[in-house]
Amino acid sequence: TRERFFVLSHFICLVKEIGIEDHRKVVHSIKVGIALVLVSLLYLLQPLYDRVGENAMWAIMTVVVVFEFTAGATLSKGLNRGLGTILGGGLGCLAALLAQILAQKAGGTGRAIAISISVFIFGAAATYYRLIPSIKKKFDYGFLIFILTFNLVAVSGFRGENIIKLAGKRLSTIAMGFLICVFTSLFAFPVWASDELHHSLVSKFDKLALSIEECLKEYFQETEEKPEGQANTHLNSYKSVLHSKAADEALANFARWEPWHGKFGFSYPWNKYLRIGELLRELAASVLTLRECLQSHQQSPLCLRLIAKEPCEEMGTLICSTLRELSDDIFKMRKFRRQESIFQSDTLQTTGQELHSVMRTFVRGTLASKNGDVGDLYPIATFVFM
Amino acid sequence: TRERFFVLSHFICLVKEIGIEDHRKVVHSIKVGIALVLVSLLYLLQPLYDRVGENAMWAIMTVVVVFEFTAGATLSKGLNRGLGTILGGGLGCLAALLAQILAQKAGGTGRAIAISISVFIFGAAATYYRLIPSIKKKFDYGFLIFILTFNLVAVSGFRGENIIKLAGKRLSTIAMGFLICVFTSLFAFPVWASDELHHSLVSKFDKLALSIEECLKEYFQETEEKPEGQANTHLNSYKSVLHSKAADEALANFARWEPWHGKFGFSYPWNKYLRIGELLRELAASVLTLRECLQSHQQSPLCLRLIAKEPCEEMGTLICSTLRELSDDIFKMRKFRRQESIFQSDTLQTTGQELHSVMRTFVRGTLASKNGDVGDLYPIATFVFM
Repeated sequence: TRERFFVLSHFICLVKEIGIEDHRKVVHSIKVGIALVLVSLLYLLQPLYDRVGENAMWAIMTVVVVFEFTAGATLSKGLNRGLGTILGGGLGCLAALLAQILAQKAGGTGRAIAISISVFIFGAAATYYRLIPSIKKKFDYGFLIFILTFNLVAVSGFRGENIIKLAGKRLSTIAMGFLICVFTSLFAFPVWASDELHHSLVSKFDKLALSIEECLKEYFQETEEKPEGQANTHLNSYKSVLHSKAADEALANFARWEPWHGKFGFSYPWNKYLRIGELLRELAASVLTLRECLQSHQQSPLCLRLIAKEPCEEMGTLICSTLRELSDDIFKMRKFRRQESIFQSDTLQTTGQELHSVMRTFVRGTLASKNGDVGDLYPIATFVFM
Repeated sequence: TRERFFVLSHFICLVKEIGIEDHRKVVHSIKVGIALVLVSLLYLLQPLYDRVGENAMWAIMTVVVVFEFTAGATLSKGLNRGLGTILGGGLGCLAALLAQILAQKAGGTGRAIAISISVFIFGAAATYYRLIPSIKKKFDYGFLIFILTFNLVAVSGFRGENIIKLAGKRLSTIAMGFLICVFTSLFAFPVWASDELHHSLVSKFDKLALSIEECLKEYFQETEEKPEGQANTHLNSYKSVLHSKAADEALANFARWEPWHGKFGFSYPWNKYLRIGELLRELAASVLTLRECLQSHQQSPLCLRLIAKEPCEEMGTLICSTLRELSDDIFKMRKFRRQESIFQSDTLQTTGQELHSVMRTFVRGTLASKNGDVGDLYPIATFVFM
């Protein structure tokens, strides 16, 4: 036993070391390990094994496949699996029974052919449905399990086993596996997809504010040299906003499956998160364009840039501070504090006029590239504020 | 039998009807159906069943889970499954044997504890590795199967079965299932991920050219009314380019698994596809910004727009035709035909100068929004052309 403890303490040390890097991943891994041990008990403890027998395999399979990083993903996969199994099992039983009736007329070969045809038709139809995007998004895994269960039950029936009993046993072990998953996933340090989505939205505002500030700073700095490394960090941050669509949609999809918890009620408006995310991606696209102007060969002379510096920076600060305020308000889930929109505020009006007057006076030749783009931020910002 | 034929012909009619919508999805569904029937024969034909027995289940499971839309995805999943099974089975056997040796000292309970600990450690470690992004991208499924097989083999060993024989049998049925998948997926109407990626890249060029043309047309049209429906179609087309990152990366990942076929060799430079895709996404971001300028409240007066119309349109045509040429060249896989880059060409030079002179003369107040952005297209285009 001393050896065993040594191994265990060594493992804990290892976990601690990695834990500094990413705490939550380690917690998740440990939770999966615990769930696996729990489900293995179905094999390891004699009284439990007497009850479920070889079907314990299905419980293990369920835990391995269903246990996902976020609680919502686990629930969605588990429920999909359950529904797929019930539907597939039911229809499979039906097909097997029909084939049995047919067999009384046409003999064993006829029965095999009937089962093959049913397998073909249901398999092909379910596969076709799986390819439809709206179904794929939510029920892909359910359809997969449906095909699997239908096929297994239908052909097992051919082997003369008592399929209804078999299907019932498997379903009950799958349910056990699912319960173990839900238990370990939801009740100990749960990772909620809804929290993830919430934080990712908040961080998007912050990232964009940072990128805009960085852009302005780089543009108006008086020396010509540009620090490479620094620019790249923020480059990645707004790009991550730009390409966040798929991840956001997956999270929103999982968040919908999650029960009431913390600050999120049932029917929480996840679609609004997606819409705000969409607008922020458009803003990120503008930042990207802005960045490209900075890297363009055609640059206005430094003296011109310096004249435009003040109003531009004022406007940049205004935009960034509003983004940060919004991020803070969303994070704390309260209403936007300012009574007036940023567009009715005096600051913006005067800054805008200032900028225009500066432009009108100094506009010549190669100017165009810069200011057009700060202007471009308006329409998007307008959307965000409404 | 007449009834059966009726059902079959009815089904074919149905397939034809849907087929008009999307030919390839139907073909894929039928292929899956055929593979399922083939693998069911392991159950349905007595001589085959005598050989494999209940393990035929694993073959069915393999077909259902591994058969994906593209050949590359099928191969990648199948090989992942194979590797995961071999590794998990091997290590599982080892763990079971070690536990057996331990049992001679510590008895049955000690053995159960030893198995539990090994299940926990391997399960948690593999889950942690699954969460690392670079591994998740390529080997996620392999790790999943590793956990599953390890767990099943280790706990089955506790039940005193001959685990090596069992693992061998399962592995052979999984191999059968995989072979059936490969056979139906690759040899009859294969859908190659490489083709998909190739076509998606080509269509991106075309979509962007269309969007740019549409933008220019809308901006310079002389009436104020904007047809809503038409604008939305192209809006979606460049947005699909903007959000294509995840899909492209998945395709490139699968394309790497595909064997030599058609016009693509082994080590084909799929990374270049990703890099070009990245640049096109940046261009799409510029188009999005351009679009936002069109919808902005601040618009230059129509007379001014009309003056800038000609050089802008000339430049737009140039950019679009170059995009289309590139798309065509990539589609036919030949070198870019023009000797000179578009940036050295006289047309661009003169058009650019014309544009600037027009600007210089007429720039006043609210102008900035438009032309800055056509200018923005240069740097990105420069990248694309290199």
